[in-house]
Amino acid sequence: MHKMGSYSTIAAISTPPGKGGVAVIRISGPDAFAVADRMFLPRNGQPLSAARARMQIFGDILLDGEPIDDGLAARFVAPYSYTGEDTVEISCHGGFLITKMVLSAAFAAGAEPAAAGEFTRRAFLNGKLSLTDAEAIGNLLEASSAAAVKLASAKSRDKLSAAMDGIRADAVSLMGSLFARIDYPDEDLGDFSDAESISLLRSLLGRLDALIESYRTGRAVNEGIATVICGKPNAGKSTLYNLLLGEDAAIVTDIAGTTRDVLERTVPLGQVLLRLSDTAGIRETADPVERIGVEKTQARMKEAELVLAVFDTARPLTEEDTALLDTLDTLSASKIAILNKSDLPPAWDASEIEKRIPRTLSLSAKGGDGASLRKEVEALFTNGDLTVGEDAIVSSARQHAGLLTAREHLSLALDAYLSGLPTDAAASDIERAIAALGELCGKSVSEAIVSDIFSRFCVGK
Amino acid sequence: MHKMGSYSTIAAISTPPGKGGVAVIRISGPDAFAVADRMFLPRNGQPLSAARARMQIFGDILLDGEPIDDGLAARFVAPYSYTGEDTVEISCHGGFLITKMVLSAAFAAGAEPAAAGEFTRRAFLNGKLSLTDAEAIGNLLEASSAAAVKLASAKSRDKLSAAMDGIRADAVSLMGSLFARIDYPDEDLGDFSDAESISLLRSLLGRLDALIESYRTGRAVNEGIATVICGKPNAGKSTLYNLLLGEDAAIVTDIAGTTRDVLERTVPLGQVLLRLSDTAGIRETADPVERIGVEKTQARMKEAELVLAVFDTARPLTEEDTALLDTLDTLSASKIAILNKSDLPPAWDASEIEKRIPRTLSLSAKGGDGASLRKEVEALFTNGDLTVGEDAIVSSARQHAGLLTAREHLSLALDAYLSGLPTDAAASDIERAIAALGELCGKSVSEAIVSDIFSRFCVGK
Repeated sequence: MHKMGSYSTIAAISTPPGKGGVAVIRISGPDAFAVADRMFLPRNGQPLSAARARMQIFGDILLDGEPIDDGLAARFVAPYSYTGEDTVEISCHGGFLITKMVLSAAFAAGAEPAAAGEFTRRAFLNGKLSLTDAEAIGNLLEASSAAAVKLASAKSRDKLSAAMDGIRADAVSLMGSLFARIDYPDEDLGDFSDAESISLLRSLLGRLDALIESYRTGRAVNEGIATVICGKPNAGKSTLYNLLLGEDAAIVTDIAGTTRDVLERTVPLGQVLLRLSDTAGIRETADPVERIGVEKTQARMKEAELVLAVFDTARPLTEEDTALLDTLDTLSASKIAILNKSDLPPAWDASEIEKRIPRTLSLSAKGGDGASLRKEVEALFTNGDLTVGEDAIVSSARQHAGLLTAREHLSLALDAYLSGLPTDAAASDIERAIAALGELCGKSVSEAIVSDIFSRFCVGK
Repeated sequence: MHKMGSYSTIAAISTPPGKGGVAVIRISGPDAFAVADRMFLPRNGQPLSAARARMQIFGDILLDGEPIDDGLAARFVAPYSYTGEDTVEISCHGGFLITKMVLSAAFAAGAEPAAAGEFTRRAFLNGKLSLTDAEAIGNLLEASSAAAVKLASAKSRDKLSAAMDGIRADAVSLMGSLFARIDYPDEDLGDFSDAESISLLRSLLGRLDALIESYRTGRAVNEGIATVICGKPNAGKSTLYNLLLGEDAAIVTDIAGTTRDVLERTVPLGQVLLRLSDTAGIRETADPVERIGVEKTQARMKEAELVLAVFDTARPLTEEDTALLDTLDTLSASKIAILNKSDLPPAWDASEIEKRIPRTLSLSAKGGDGASLRKEVEALFTNGDLTVGEDAIVSSARQHAGLLTAREHLSLALDAYLSGLPTDAAASDIERAIAALGELCGKSVSEAIVSDIFSRFCVGK
């Protein structure tokens, strides 16, 4: 399937770039120990390659024969390492330049620069983790909510793998039975009668549907929901924004250096993540100059999956409000009308809004209604019966697409059975479904897919 | 001197903040193993506290009883750790949030947040490193040139410690001899005659002077030289700037997230570091609108230690050039006139400039004269007879100030000897000098100085 042959020996800084107390340089490949012996001089006088595996050894790091830093090194003997290869991890001081110099020392000693995600790619190729595991690790590194961390946990991964493996195994049994019948049509070798086969196919389709549907949750948790907050000046957009921040302000991310577009701010809301576009409602809250109807905001609203439209119930509806309502009618996004200033006497009848936007929520600047908004959004974007971290939840577009393909083929197989077509057609459909499921777990997967997945990792992972 | 009593158990993320493959959480203190046992569950079923010291153990990291990540942990038994205390280092996945959650797990298990520099501070208080070592580590983390890394190396640190310890030891002998004479004035107990004492004091002063003088080099290497590039539009400021970058472009730093003022760009030039102010000469090179004489640039020039004034030899001198020359006359900074476009026929006699600025350097846009500029600057700002990484070089303002104090007291002692004053006065001067030298190495040092030094470290170091 994929080659398990000999690889080069690679090195990279595995810790985040920047300044810290400690940095870790990872070296992996057939020459890892030889490379380490050339650049790391244990203070105990024994070469690192002679040290007990997994034991932290103190020593000096050499570049051009000169000690540039001291630190700890540990070697991991294949296959008992992250990559499954011989690996050395060196901890040095975490300065910006010194870390680069220690990496240079590894290169000078014979290692090659690692490509993005190459350590994890090798771990996959060496059977240390499945493709879905690798994707979960990628999601864990990007996680900006507790729910996303849970979704990437080993428990969650195992549930998903078990669900997909179960479907695949049943499909394989069905195909085996079908081939037996094709090869020996006169003997009663099949394990399944037609009725049983049809019933099994229906069950498989149901299980696939549940997984496919679970991606709504996985996507809302991992990738988040493109969200726009809109409303006329002083309607209360900033109140809503602060309410969202307040829900879990500690983990609102606006991190320079991540791969996310900094023009978006991700805000966890319960289990889901809102990707708030940086429109007037966010960055320029102190400046109420921005008018609704501005082209930019409208463009954002067209692309949004969720629009939170804020109305001020304490002041009469204006033309701006009406214009906003007209715009909202044209949008395919889910909409929630936020009726703000519910603590003040209402200046108009909120049912005007409710007629046009079924989902409304009262809000007061004084008391936060974060819980009701969270429930509303979770109901819209996740499967309420799934528990993140406990249930099998699909968490990547690749997995989702693979399941759709498998579903399509199994559906064709069912049609073939139902219409009494020769079993050959059904067999080839089931075979295609099995192949699609195999790709999901990495049991049969093209080099292109593998490259695509691991190129999304950072260097050093 | 300083208390060696029992400390709390602290935890922090020791790797740089941000996203990477791996992050390290460090836990140190009397309860480190108990804390780790509550939050780290080895897959081998044995508690980490029962694991062999320094052995990397694979396991799950728990928060609120739920596994949130898996990783490696190693324990270090006091005093064989960085801090000298029981320590656990846990490597987890290096996501922004997951790293924070693992730290939260350590807090939930009983650890307290570490203050900035607290691990290194404890290492010092537990006698694992000297104050000068600690300062060198701080410099290493900030280092942005290969020379700064060398200056922070163990070899360099050892040379400096040896030089300071030697001076202190000789001063202690001298004081011992002096006290013997004071206590038993009638007996010939002193090891040193007056002549010998005077000679030793002179030698000590000479050795102190050499160290004090070495700070010129240490400062130029570590902190850098406040530098301004000036000159009329199109004189060649950007040529000079590119030449400086070209000298070692790979390690020019302009790092977000460091403590440096981002309006300064540090550029290594040989052993020294130029701190280039972001004036017209740097950021707006493409925009020659900026005129010399602008107040901001003049203010920068007044604060600068080095002014590189660029003149265009291919075009006649203008009023702007003359104005610049007049300004230069008023500055206390070291000045180097860069005579640019030396590849074109000269339009004026360069000796005009040389009369007013003794240090001139010809430069051509086509051929870089980086080496001569480097030599000139190194001659101005370092001690040519010192080799960074080989010789004892003072590398912090605190060390420099301490040496000046010691020098002052020894100088008074010498005066006392020379003027035939009673030995009591000389003894108390020498005692004060010894105290100042003791503070330098941390042998006797106030809590305030310790706090000041370690507060400059990042959290996690």
